[in-house]
Amino acid sequence: MTTEEMLSHTALHSWKLVIGRLDAVIAPLSDEELQKQVAPGKNRLLYLVGHLTAVHDRMFPMLGLGERLHPELDDIYITSPDRVRPDPVSAAELKHAWSEVNGKLTAAFEKLTPQQWLEKHTAVSDEDFAKDPTRNRLAVLLSRTNHAAFHTGQAALVK
Amino acid sequence: MTTEEMLSHTALHSWKLVIGRLDAVIAPLSDEELQKQVAPGKNRLLYLVGHLTAVHDRMFPMLGLGERLHPELDDIYITSPDRVRPDPVSAAELKHAWSEVNGKLTAAFEKLTPQQWLEKHTAVSDEDFAKDPTRNRLAVLLSRTNHAAFHTGQAALVK
Repeated sequence: MTTEEMLSHTALHSWKLVIGRLDAVIAPLSDEELQKQVAPGKNRLLYLVGHLTAVHDRMFPMLGLGERLHPELDDIYITSPDRVRPDPVSAAELKHAWSEVNGKLTAAFEKLTPQQWLEKHTAVSDEDFAKDPTRNRLAVLLSRTNHAAFHTGQAALVK
Repeated sequence: MTTEEMLSHTALHSWKLVIGRLDAVIAPLSDEELQKQVAPGKNRLLYLVGHLTAVHDRMFPMLGLGERLHPELDDIYITSPDRVRPDPVSAAELKHAWSEVNGKLTAAFEKLTPQQWLEKHTAVSDEDFAKDPTRNRLAVLLSRTNHAAFHTGQAALVK
């Protein structure tokens, strides 16, 4: 592997570690357990699953990796705070969407070359990218990895 | 900037973003506010500051970047859970240590070349590194960035 390849490989490895840890937290939870809040009055675990699924699903168009799988989740799990609107699908369906989105995303990530990781994402203009070339695909991957870790810290508070 | 340099630059940028966000949470907090727990019975914010300072301080020897600044924090903020032992220093001193450690670490990070980011860290043997070359300095940086984001998610629950 070249230096470039090992650098992007290491970053992708970090994404997989964080997603894998969150999977290990979420997968064994029952429907009742997913209704627990991470702290009194805060988001339910199920909301976090929906939120992270929707945010990750948005990476397909943002990184030019294809169409979204679950755009219907945004209204409930990004635009609205928790417990304002009913969950649109069952916990089992949401868990399935979570795995599906992460699985297909990670497979698409595996195919990107180091140069492609440094290309601009679609949410930044050519002009802004010229000013700040760190607004690339890799920055989005690392930002979403940190975002997933942020909510993993909250989910870890639930016993 | 070469492809290699931009890849490691983007990763370092992600570290700086996460530390900067956590700084913005911690800096304005009063001593009383730092005594709040992130959730009932969970770690105090002050413990998280001590914990993250100690964990980050350990990166100096782990990444071959020099001597630690605050090894005395480990016993209280890594080995012991919160509220078992008294805080050894004031909140102001702990905040200062947090800024000092991150400032010096980040300055040392800035000097590393892409090749140096891929060198093994000191906590892995030559044999293990040969088997898994992702156990490099960059992996530690990304892991600690995720760890800081993990606890930022908890700190964000406190109002």
